[in-house]
Amino acid sequence: MALKKKPVTGMRDVLPAEMRVREYVMNQIRETYQSFGFTQIETPCVEHIENLTSKQGGDNEKLIFKILKRGEKLNLAAAQEENDLTDSGLRYDLTLPLSRYYANNAAQLQSPFKALQMGSVWRADRPQKGRFRQFTQCDIDILGEAGSMAEIELILATTTALAKICPKNAFTVRINDRRILKGMALYSGFPEESMDQVFITLDKMDKIGADGVKAELLELGYEADSVEKYVSLLADTGTSVAAVRVLGDTLDGVLPKTVTENLAGIMDTVTGVAETEFKLEFDPTLVRGMSYYTGTIFEVSMEGFGGSVAGGGRYDEMIGKFTGQKTPACGFSIGFERIITILMDQGGIDAEQAPRKAYLIEKGMDQERLTAIMKQAMEERKAGCQILVSQMNKNKKFQKDQLSKDGYTEFVEFYREALK
Amino acid sequence: MALKKKPVTGMRDVLPAEMRVREYVMNQIRETYQSFGFTQIETPCVEHIENLTSKQGGDNEKLIFKILKRGEKLNLAAAQEENDLTDSGLRYDLTLPLSRYYANNAAQLQSPFKALQMGSVWRADRPQKGRFRQFTQCDIDILGEAGSMAEIELILATTTALAKICPKNAFTVRINDRRILKGMALYSGFPEESMDQVFITLDKMDKIGADGVKAELLELGYEADSVEKYVSLLADTGTSVAAVRVLGDTLDGVLPKTVTENLAGIMDTVTGVAETEFKLEFDPTLVRGMSYYTGTIFEVSMEGFGGSVAGGGRYDEMIGKFTGQKTPACGFSIGFERIITILMDQGGIDAEQAPRKAYLIEKGMDQERLTAIMKQAMEERKAGCQILVSQMNKNKKFQKDQLSKDGYTEFVEFYREALK
Repeated sequence: MALKKKPVTGMRDVLPAEMRVREYVMNQIRETYQSFGFTQIETPCVEHIENLTSKQGGDNEKLIFKILKRGEKLNLAAAQEENDLTDSGLRYDLTLPLSRYYANNAAQLQSPFKALQMGSVWRADRPQKGRFRQFTQCDIDILGEAGSMAEIELILATTTALAKICPKNAFTVRINDRRILKGMALYSGFPEESMDQVFITLDKMDKIGADGVKAELLELGYEADSVEKYVSLLADTGTSVAAVRVLGDTLDGVLPKTVTENLAGIMDTVTGVAETEFKLEFDPTLVRGMSYYTGTIFEVSMEGFGGSVAGGGRYDEMIGKFTGQKTPACGFSIGFERIITILMDQGGIDAEQAPRKAYLIEKGMDQERLTAIMKQAMEERKAGCQILVSQMNKNKKFQKDQLSKDGYTEFVEFYREALK
Repeated sequence: MALKKKPVTGMRDVLPAEMRVREYVMNQIRETYQSFGFTQIETPCVEHIENLTSKQGGDNEKLIFKILKRGEKLNLAAAQEENDLTDSGLRYDLTLPLSRYYANNAAQLQSPFKALQMGSVWRADRPQKGRFRQFTQCDIDILGEAGSMAEIELILATTTALAKICPKNAFTVRINDRRILKGMALYSGFPEESMDQVFITLDKMDKIGADGVKAELLELGYEADSVEKYVSLLADTGTSVAAVRVLGDTLDGVLPKTVTENLAGIMDTVTGVAETEFKLEFDPTLVRGMSYYTGTIFEVSMEGFGGSVAGGGRYDEMIGKFTGQKTPACGFSIGFERIITILMDQGGIDAEQAPRKAYLIEKGMDQERLTAIMKQAMEERKAGCQILVSQMNKNKKFQKDQLSKDGYTEFVEFYREALK
């Protein structure tokens, strides 16, 4: 019987050195978010297939690991298509399950509810460096809060956490609003029904640049006037709070002033309150893929690393799909695996650790002495020391070298009799 | 579009109050095990179907959640049976993935390797009270240690952890050895090839009693003499270390003395070293279901609760199935969900928590004051306080009642203007 040693395609074993970094980062995130009053919750990793394929997840819905029906429910002979074989799948994010959770349990939760989730999600992406099919997400969400206090708290909490975890890395929070995005397109003369297609193109800005966006929009058949006006507006709009207010004036007539004022207010307050240093910029080209966003959207990029390390936004429509009753919601997700990659590339973390000591015991030790040695280890553990009790290997030097790599700085060797 | 609010059958949402207990218990277990030098690792939740169905998992292999093949690999038209549709599934325990992990990564791991795993596993059991289809296991394993130091350390670490988590509950560790089990059956005259069947019956002892076991063995067609001798031997054997040694004398000829001496040595040393109070008993009727055990087996029961709260044993053959090279292995698993149930029934935990304070802010607060209030919250958080910033609801009394239930003991109310 040949068993397979490697993990399944696209998934991975976490080795001890990385595991320590992961545990450290998880604890830092958890502590920070709890200090902001976020409450940790957990949802099952398996979700109803109806929920997973309800068009909340955009492209992620193509990447679902589906679970085979069981027992009588599985009728292979009668199955016409894939969907006849499955009634559940692995969650591709934590937002959809959170919405279901809130819909199911709202009566027992605070209102507004500040949720903290840390958990695995699965996406059958094409395997590539640094991207895995099982990965961890760390999300905070505020449900039932319509006002901008939600955005402000989410940005403050996430930036506080990021500054703690990656104290060496400067980062920038870019912020936009789906409604501003739409306002700019309408103002430029794009028809209402073209919004999704225009944003898909705009979203490629960091890859293809302004010229690329322009070319693609023209190629899609939009009017040259509209495209020109749009690309100029994007280029001329600055990143400051003042720029948001100016844009508000420009878009008068296609966008209510309250929308730009809301965003400017968020930026002002965050800047006024934040204790950690980071750049906060308005980015009129920020789109974010997920179709469920309805208002403010944000993303964090870290100096020296492509892509984002965190992102989120407001999604006021999703919970209503479960309950029939509109519930405002806003969330921010840290890209846990990216953070871990960055930290591992920097050589891990310098967290203080309990002193580590290894007891190496020669084979064949008599039981009475073994008992005494192990009792001694128990005493030291009670005093806060981490004591590894291990047999002494033949190649003692190699054993100690290996243990040193794992952080052991003290070795106590026990022999059956006095060394000659 | 009607989305489903309830979790999938047999799985569950974890509410905040339970989540706090879970987090607390996880941290206690992790800290305790780390003080014994166990190293935390993680394996993917998804495993190769070949590994999951390799007869290491006993009945659990009937309960696997199988994952549908994807893309071109899924050929529905050509599929003859269930296995044509799947190439992976959710892990049903942490032991099989650990063996694969060790086989895959041994060169980068300490030897012996002391592993700590905390993670979800899935079994499609019939849903019933207190039993769920996704649940958490907390396992420690020592790989590469053939001697009884492994058993001793595992029992010391697990009992230390249990005493910390459930300080109010007396518990008993019952211990046996698969080889003694076999020795007793051979001594009583059962044929070599009947072992599995005899043990399946013996395993029902706590449900059907000695008379029930006797009746069932007779019904299965075993000789009355053998059955009588076997049941008497079981009844006459005590639970002390002395009883193990006496049994060693009795079984002389069918079982090497080293086996009973090994078990007696484990019991002596554990009793001599343990700092926490618990009963340690030899239990000649202890079987444990998993077919992979090869030597010592143990189980922990807690006063006032049916079933076991922890269990484990030696499984020297499993890793070799991956590597072709025999590697001794021994593990102990805490039934995390049972522990949580017990603690929740007792009203949770009395862990000290950071002071919790809620800022309730009247709607429509001007931005300048909001900024000042949020700045104050940030200062208090830095000082170690947990500050929830929330809008003030219309029903303020209800809001404060709800927050009190969540541990908030201090409320600061902010109004737009002086209260009349």
